[in-house]
Amino acid sequence: MEKSELLYEGKGKKMWSVKGNDELLIAEFKDDLTAFNAEKKGNEEGKGALNNQISTAIFKLLKENGIETALVESISPTEQLVKKCSIIPLEVVVRNIATGSLSKRLGIKEATVLPFTLVEFYYKDDALGDPLINDEHAILLDIVQSEQDLATLRHLGRQINSVLQPFFASKGLKLVDFKVEFGIDKDGNILLADEISPDSCRFWDVDTGEKMDKDRFRQDLGSVKVAYEEVLRRILS
Amino acid sequence: MEKSELLYEGKGKKMWSVKGNDELLIAEFKDDLTAFNAEKKGNEEGKGALNNQISTAIFKLLKENGIETALVESISPTEQLVKKCSIIPLEVVVRNIATGSLSKRLGIKEATVLPFTLVEFYYKDDALGDPLINDEHAILLDIVQSEQDLATLRHLGRQINSVLQPFFASKGLKLVDFKVEFGIDKDGNILLADEISPDSCRFWDVDTGEKMDKDRFRQDLGSVKVAYEEVLRRILS
Repeated sequence: MEKSELLYEGKGKKMWSVKGNDELLIAEFKDDLTAFNAEKKGNEEGKGALNNQISTAIFKLLKENGIETALVESISPTEQLVKKCSIIPLEVVVRNIATGSLSKRLGIKEATVLPFTLVEFYYKDDALGDPLINDEHAILLDIVQSEQDLATLRHLGRQINSVLQPFFASKGLKLVDFKVEFGIDKDGNILLADEISPDSCRFWDVDTGEKMDKDRFRQDLGSVKVAYEEVLRRILS
Repeated sequence: MEKSELLYEGKGKKMWSVKGNDELLIAEFKDDLTAFNAEKKGNEEGKGALNNQISTAIFKLLKENGIETALVESISPTEQLVKKCSIIPLEVVVRNIATGSLSKRLGIKEATVLPFTLVEFYYKDDALGDPLINDEHAILLDIVQSEQDLATLRHLGRQINSVLQPFFASKGLKLVDFKVEFGIDKDGNILLADEISPDSCRFWDVDTGEKMDKDRFRQDLGSVKVAYEEVLRRILS
């Protein structure tokens, strides 16, 4: 599999076409770190490779649990072969514990365990700052065709959570919240796409409460890479 | 009916208890104008009396069309007798045409006629700036007990729109959008409460496109009271 053309460069990844293959893409994980809609920028050597390994392991676990994903396989330290799909411009955020923007926007005390798993949709649009939307906005913006599609995305978000929450608990990590993105393949199937990594999740150490994710970068806590390495170590343990 | 104790003073109204009557309240309409979560403040003599007359006429029209409301009757130029109810802390916003915060947040071109009547819920909390919420947030915040309650509020919002949109069209006014609030009475019935006035609606003149509502104050267009008087004149015509 040989990289052909750079199709898209996002904040965390570059997407390449594959020579002689129209159905696959190569996702290259970058070392760049961004936060607060890219107002804060940084770089951590080796972060891309860590996220590639972490996300590959998580997607495999989800696949084993019946979640369809766009991942084919990891093909180098920083690259994945993935199925080509059309990304639904929604950030599907799944929350078990209140923190970050949820606590701020709705005045919910930091670290409150939510009475149910909350799912939120944010409209993926950098210029607009990825605003929170409701179901009717998603239809209005032609992001999805029907309320049923939104119900499916909500269900998938909760299904992923029900696999990952106990998995990470067994590794001594609280899965506080995470963001997932989905794509639609050429046959109309909804696939889990993008990545699941410490860039897109919040993990708190069960014993110490220590933050093991991108909040270390957002909040200038230091030891970003050390935390990501520890997450990978525990996943593979 | 005699005012007894001041129970609550909001941005647009004072709410008084009624001497010797536990089931009614007196709503007193103020001349104050506020916008952008009260960051902008003003006062227009006679505005309270205009809104009382406008809202009374609109609530009567809605009552005739089967919408239950908290209004009993207007009892003075600036006062209404209303049924006591517990206000649901939601701003239910109903939109026919994109403008204001909707256009800004989602990048929808100003004055776009929406393909369907959009309903949004905002959490009534001044300290938080009345944030937009989704259905799951409303349950999480204990604003309502069930998804069914939200479906009822959405239905009521659309029902009110289906009465008011043609009514205002017949008066040469486009009903662009409006905000309504609901209360729950002692028997558990959901009643339309608060007010419907140029403070809580956007009206555009059908012929000239002129703004006939609080946007004249928000955007410093002048002639605020003249516009409110014209809305009243047309409603009563």
